[in-house]
Amino acid sequence: MTQVIDLAKKFASFSETWQPKILAEVNGQEVRIAKIDGEFEWHRHDDADEMFLVVSGKLRMRFRDKDAVVLPGQMIVVPRGTEHLPVAEPTAEILMIETAGTRNTGEHESERTAVLERI
Amino acid sequence: MTQVIDLAKKFASFSETWQPKILAEVNGQEVRIAKIDGEFEWHRHDDADEMFLVVSGKLRMRFRDKDAVVLPGQMIVVPRGTEHLPVAEPTAEILMIETAGTRNTGEHESERTAVLERI
Repeated sequence: MTQVIDLAKKFASFSETWQPKILAEVNGQEVRIAKIDGEFEWHRHDDADEMFLVVSGKLRMRFRDKDAVVLPGQMIVVPRGTEHLPVAEPTAEILMIETAGTRNTGEHESERTAVLERI
Repeated sequence: MTQVIDLAKKFASFSETWQPKILAEVNGQEVRIAKIDGEFEWHRHDDADEMFLVVSGKLRMRFRDKDAVVLPGQMIVVPRGTEHLPVAEPTAEILMIETAGTRNTGEHESERTAVLERI
């Protein structure tokens, strides 16, 4: 567990979008990274807060009542139960912290529900 | 909770070293940042893993049996119960994830035990 993890190397190791990869586990939370492009889908996580840190690109986090633009070196926490729609404009690389096992599409399964692998 | 947090602005808002600041809470974990310089002290956290992401500078994480050098864009997880000594060479800015309330000096109190504030 005490290996150094290089984010740039991890991002360089895959190309698919909206397929989060697990880098590490910390106190039952997973540290995940993902490449994203365009719009995801509205969803919420009833039992898990979700933190997004933008590494490159631009993330627009849409909520039902506002948008938040998150740029590299910026982060946002989406509280549990809050509907949100992540949109990359046009692409972004993000690091996420969320409870282990949290489904990327939240309360519903869809064609965008990902099977997460550890890299 | 859905405010955008800018790491550079947060780092610019304080100057003291080895005084972690809490930026956000995610599922009972605290997202903390700290400026560090030189050597801290050996300690361990019996009940909490600790993740370190280096934002700038150079962190040498010493363990009893090895060292790990962590550079900007790299991270390391120190598992609970593992003795470690963080050393900045000569300074670093780091982001940490650890269980809310975790004492920075781990199992013992010392003059370096910090009272954490939220910024």
